[in-house]
Amino acid sequence: MLSEFDLIARYFKRPLPAGSRTAVGIGDDCALLAPAPGMHLAISCDMLVEGRHFFPDVDVASLGHKSLAVNLSDLAAMGAQPLAFTLALSLPSANEAWLAAFSDGLFALADQFACPLIGGDTTRGPLNICITVLGEVPLAQALRRSAACVGDDIWVSGSFGEARLALAAHLNEIELETPAMQQADARLLRPTPRVLLGTALRGIAHAAIDISDGLCGDLGHILEQAKVGATINVDAVPTGAALHGQSLERRRHYTLAGGDDYELCFTAPASARNEVLAAAGAAATPVTRIGVIDSAPGLRLQDARAQPVQLVLHSFDHFK
Amino acid sequence: MLSEFDLIARYFKRPLPAGSRTAVGIGDDCALLAPAPGMHLAISCDMLVEGRHFFPDVDVASLGHKSLAVNLSDLAAMGAQPLAFTLALSLPSANEAWLAAFSDGLFALADQFACPLIGGDTTRGPLNICITVLGEVPLAQALRRSAACVGDDIWVSGSFGEARLALAAHLNEIELETPAMQQADARLLRPTPRVLLGTALRGIAHAAIDISDGLCGDLGHILEQAKVGATINVDAVPTGAALHGQSLERRRHYTLAGGDDYELCFTAPASARNEVLAAAGAAATPVTRIGVIDSAPGLRLQDARAQPVQLVLHSFDHFK
Repeated sequence: MLSEFDLIARYFKRPLPAGSRTAVGIGDDCALLAPAPGMHLAISCDMLVEGRHFFPDVDVASLGHKSLAVNLSDLAAMGAQPLAFTLALSLPSANEAWLAAFSDGLFALADQFACPLIGGDTTRGPLNICITVLGEVPLAQALRRSAACVGDDIWVSGSFGEARLALAAHLNEIELETPAMQQADARLLRPTPRVLLGTALRGIAHAAIDISDGLCGDLGHILEQAKVGATINVDAVPTGAALHGQSLERRRHYTLAGGDDYELCFTAPASARNEVLAAAGAAATPVTRIGVIDSAPGLRLQDARAQPVQLVLHSFDHFK
Repeated sequence: MLSEFDLIARYFKRPLPAGSRTAVGIGDDCALLAPAPGMHLAISCDMLVEGRHFFPDVDVASLGHKSLAVNLSDLAAMGAQPLAFTLALSLPSANEAWLAAFSDGLFALADQFACPLIGGDTTRGPLNICITVLGEVPLAQALRRSAACVGDDIWVSGSFGEARLALAAHLNEIELETPAMQQADARLLRPTPRVLLGTALRGIAHAAIDISDGLCGDLGHILEQAKVGATINVDAVPTGAALHGQSLERRRHYTLAGGDDYELCFTAPASARNEVLAAAGAAATPVTRIGVIDSAPGLRLQDARAQPVQLVLHSFDHFK
């Protein structure tokens, strides 16, 4: 039977990438990483639990991808460049097919961002995946939530609602045609962390956040921390194509409060519109202006004709 | 009912310590940490699972202590000074009594080492605690496992076997009198991370490892990575006082392969004995010389009269 050390050696220990700033990787009491002069370290941590963040029959390679993607998304929202990550894994058994698929999906994404696995832990227990990611960003250019200013434009990357649509189909709340299901499932299972956009927005954007619990709820964290308000045009928020056959109400709810989108929402001065578009072009990432930061507290929703839209939206909360 | 954000605000968000190098703590997409010039970052990660690493009826404040202690122990074994940690927590419910006790035990130890909690994640699920700790050490002084040299003395801190004794009592393998049980349980539940010793040994010791899976097994990792062998005097290894009423065989097994000791085992040149003792004195940590590194591969056990000791010892393995 596969021992803990064999398991790590076979599925998780790999040569460090050339030019890595990792002096010591897997196999000592700690990993050792050389910080770059002038940079702050950015650290984020996400835990994924079976039955809570993913279904027991999830595609395992996609789970490997998503486990790292949600962490890279946090770096992106800070404008940080990925450096390395640790993985702690609790597994019911040392299932080699599972380990091979998981590590394949994980490392495909890690390689894309030259972000090596430098340490971690493996144990037996209910399936649980905990990744801590390390990145770097110059302190003055970090995209803090509190940095939104009155008058800033509000922007989003990509499109929203498809991950929530896939979830609804998995929960048998709705039925989807195969093409829509495939597209929606890809968004749920293999989110694209907007790392290129995040780093391109350094020195241009003010505040940023990644959208994991729903656009309006997560934008609310920016408003709260920056002590500002906002008005958004809900019709301007890009809705994923797989949602086009759905009712207006469902489209709006899934787009504005669906969760699991892993897009960035960011603010930037109106004077920087061309720079934002240039940064987005350089990052090959579509961005859309959806509203403005204003001084009156709270979030106001309007439609394309500037009429108020009344929606009761709930962000995801693990304990409510 | 307590929301996820209330839970974090009430039990885990605290002011950063004065002089902290944390520029951004809990509440943004990432924490931001300022590295010190000339230092490498040391990173380690441990996951504790209910029923695997602790009993369901564990004292919860002790669990908070131990969750961080096992991580600080890894920093100690690298000679690294603690900087900060992240905590990911999967909980069956937002039980406020549990959270209050856990965070009390956690922060009491964190405060002792001025090591703030800077980020993390909370989710609902089977009880699982994952901490990633960050520290710093000058690269040239890091206590690498591979740095053991032929002729080095082998030293250990503190004493061994009491945590395994407590485990045996909890599993009803043995019966213990109350004073012995209290002493043994304290070792199992509230290990002392040897951070002061680890940093004091910088520039003096060659290799070090922290003993979590059993002394002989963990020393084996040093031998393997340094491509050396060792001879130890098993009668020289300090056995915890609570073991004194036990049979010689049990004392030896628990001392040499018990696990959960969280002591350091380190090697240093024979010429540095006085410096080792001075460092241990400065760290107020007892140390004992138990053997020597030699060139013949493998680990040889001897008794006090230099006679070979035959023992079949097993290290803990989560997947065997």
